[in-house]
Amino acid sequence: MSPEEFRRYGRQVVDWIADYLSTIEAHPVRSQARPGQVRAALPAHPPEQGEPYEAVLQDLSRVILPGVTHWQHPNFFAYFPANASGPGILGDLLSSGLGVQGMVWATSPACTELETVVVDWLAELLGLPDRFRTDAAGGGVIQDSASSASLVATLAALHRASGGKVGADGISGRYTMYVSSQTHSSLEKAGRIAGIGASNVRVVDIDPVTQAMDPVHLRALIDADISAGATPAMVCATIGTTSTTAIDPVAEIGAVCREHGIWLHIDAAYAGVAAVCPELRWINDGVASYADSYATDPHKWLLTNFDCSVLWVSDRQPMIDALSILPEYLRNSATESGAVIDYRDWQVPLGRRFRALKLWSVIRWYGAEGLREHIQAGIAQAAEFAALVAADQDFELRRPHPFGLVCFRPLRTNEETMALLERINDSGELYLSHTKINGQVFLRLAVGALLTTSDHVKNAWAAIQRANQQL
Amino acid sequence: MSPEEFRRYGRQVVDWIADYLSTIEAHPVRSQARPGQVRAALPAHPPEQGEPYEAVLQDLSRVILPGVTHWQHPNFFAYFPANASGPGILGDLLSSGLGVQGMVWATSPACTELETVVVDWLAELLGLPDRFRTDAAGGGVIQDSASSASLVATLAALHRASGGKVGADGISGRYTMYVSSQTHSSLEKAGRIAGIGASNVRVVDIDPVTQAMDPVHLRALIDADISAGATPAMVCATIGTTSTTAIDPVAEIGAVCREHGIWLHIDAAYAGVAAVCPELRWINDGVASYADSYATDPHKWLLTNFDCSVLWVSDRQPMIDALSILPEYLRNSATESGAVIDYRDWQVPLGRRFRALKLWSVIRWYGAEGLREHIQAGIAQAAEFAALVAADQDFELRRPHPFGLVCFRPLRTNEETMALLERINDSGELYLSHTKINGQVFLRLAVGALLTTSDHVKNAWAAIQRANQQL
Repeated sequence: MSPEEFRRYGRQVVDWIADYLSTIEAHPVRSQARPGQVRAALPAHPPEQGEPYEAVLQDLSRVILPGVTHWQHPNFFAYFPANASGPGILGDLLSSGLGVQGMVWATSPACTELETVVVDWLAELLGLPDRFRTDAAGGGVIQDSASSASLVATLAALHRASGGKVGADGISGRYTMYVSSQTHSSLEKAGRIAGIGASNVRVVDIDPVTQAMDPVHLRALIDADISAGATPAMVCATIGTTSTTAIDPVAEIGAVCREHGIWLHIDAAYAGVAAVCPELRWINDGVASYADSYATDPHKWLLTNFDCSVLWVSDRQPMIDALSILPEYLRNSATESGAVIDYRDWQVPLGRRFRALKLWSVIRWYGAEGLREHIQAGIAQAAEFAALVAADQDFELRRPHPFGLVCFRPLRTNEETMALLERINDSGELYLSHTKINGQVFLRLAVGALLTTSDHVKNAWAAIQRANQQL
Repeated sequence: MSPEEFRRYGRQVVDWIADYLSTIEAHPVRSQARPGQVRAALPAHPPEQGEPYEAVLQDLSRVILPGVTHWQHPNFFAYFPANASGPGILGDLLSSGLGVQGMVWATSPACTELETVVVDWLAELLGLPDRFRTDAAGGGVIQDSASSASLVATLAALHRASGGKVGADGISGRYTMYVSSQTHSSLEKAGRIAGIGASNVRVVDIDPVTQAMDPVHLRALIDADISAGATPAMVCATIGTTSTTAIDPVAEIGAVCREHGIWLHIDAAYAGVAAVCPELRWINDGVASYADSYATDPHKWLLTNFDCSVLWVSDRQPMIDALSILPEYLRNSATESGAVIDYRDWQVPLGRRFRALKLWSVIRWYGAEGLREHIQAGIAQAAEFAALVAADQDFELRRPHPFGLVCFRPLRTNEETMALLERINDSGELYLSHTKINGQVFLRLAVGALLTTSDHVKNAWAAIQRANQQL
């Protein structure tokens, strides 16, 4: 494809996306496709000759779109939002167009240095402690997802807990990590990947009302494990759990960790970015004093399209020691000078895209003001929805709801609630997901998509009430 | 950013990329930036107010480009190519614009089903065995990189070798994996991450001439390890090593693996895609009979911009069992029906982009013919370069060079060769990397960038000769 062809087709694709986003409400939110439908509509064999790009765009509308669940739809309220903003898309496009590799500083210095700048910017925007800054002993890095951030934190923690033995000789003896039933599944996955094993990912009790981790039980579990000869490697506290956006008591958990020298990782994947609003800085209470690592996802609620999860550590050395390998073909004078960062040692893969461009684009386009307005709008819309739920005696509202997620339930059996959910989602009008709290199924409505307005939230509530009456 | 603003700025960005690619030869190939230069040119603090996107584009040219090493430059011959073609860029742009999540089938069926189709297409294009197809017990999946593919293969192998015990209870006892000194560093990294430990990543001898793994020594190591009570989990054979594109004897290695029931992973990250040419299918000899998993990177030499590494397995179950966790909020009827693939269980992260769009775009735009022509052009240019080296008595050419990489050296000391390399790279005219073979430094010239022509290769050789004379 020549630069002139790229220019021509590029404009077509840009127009296609602009049209798509302008008319996104014409689509059912959740794809109505049946298993195998998309696959059956595509050729079983690759083409022998090349095709014009128009053919791809035609199939995109004809075959792919009906199989797409529209995460950018203003009535997408499932899971958590996955914001893809204009500047985020353009930043990613620039990254694709430049096509550089940022595995080490020397392979494209700007790819590394812009990343250092923007993660420092984000730390400042969120009011995170100075020791997470690269100028101190810490630093931030863009990962593909909070799952990968969790894994990197786990590996750094294991390295520290084992004095480097795990990397050198493998796991021997029993290492433990601590989560709650509300912790994201990626932490258990990290424990399994790292060779710790699911049974050594210890599940700390939660407060049944707040769903927050119980630091007293944490301490008891740790003491028992140490007595039994295990080595506690990491505790993960969550700020804004996936199920209900519960907030674990970081300061109390941190005090337990400090007593035993255990790595404290904070998973704030969804909610952490909310701290861009000064009135929400309290969510990070305890982080400055106690956290060894902290992850939040601009690709969820901060307008930066996937993938862009930021992980900060207060001491980068255990992470680098856990992940660094220097083969001959990557040796270079900049690395050997020690004056540069090689982000390949801050992540699992070697190769890395120029992801900083999209976060840079987003922060510059919106500014701190615009980012705050986006978060505040989501919280206000969630509060508006919650007020509607609270006013309906056929429904139970879960409180508090400090962010954009509202959990609620019709006063029905679990089976009926699930049937209601299916009915709502099958309609294509809106898309919700669900969770279980103390055995009861709750519906989850997560506000935060870029196109969602107060009217969308009101209409969603009307649709839910209607479906509930029809049930 | 409204759809209309996106349309306007999108065109500017498309034009910026088209202009960049049209004028890329005006830039020094390797960035001339000093450590800290890019960072110093950027504001230390994020903007309070938003800025117009023009400001980003201005800084892109002013600050970022001087810090970029131009991987798409026709005189970029370092490492391996990282092809970013027009259709690849556009496919990625479509993915960003749609902004969907493909973690499970239900979150966007087309994201999963198109991926299944294109990895099956690619398996067919490369002549890979039918058991890697999803219709059989295997299947393919797009990973971000071959490093991640190696890790997933390692975890699946460990799962199989331990009968599921590692995931459940962690590593206990000694597991081993087998590589050679020429195996990519990501395999050792995978062994460290998985809790196997670097010392249990056993390094098999190589043939000093071919640099290929010695299956006799492999067998001896495995036998000794088993006698010592270890459990061998995986052997990694490489088709096209990073250093010299050596090819390990897969069939002989596979026979050893089969004897002991050991997982055989094939790392064909760079060279595997060359099998799109029927005359190069021989590189995969032994794969059909013996390989449990196979990875190759369309993002290196197959015109699909990073990240797009494809991993195939012949039995998907151990991988899924090693990586699957199903929290309540991801439960859905499609998953429970068993009729769909949930690719989150085929990778480390939970979230996933719609990466199939770029590989689909590339295969359709180029067709099988175009893909073959691209590989053949790279090989022909490499052969042309090699002939020039062979004709110069001041240089030693390494043979064979079956792909796009040519290793060669001036008849000088290692220190002088490195000085020559620095001189060449400092010039900005072209960019090479180096390796060590049996203690001797060789220069690596890897052809395969989309814009590289025969003239670029001839001029590169002239510049190398000139620099060597000036030394």
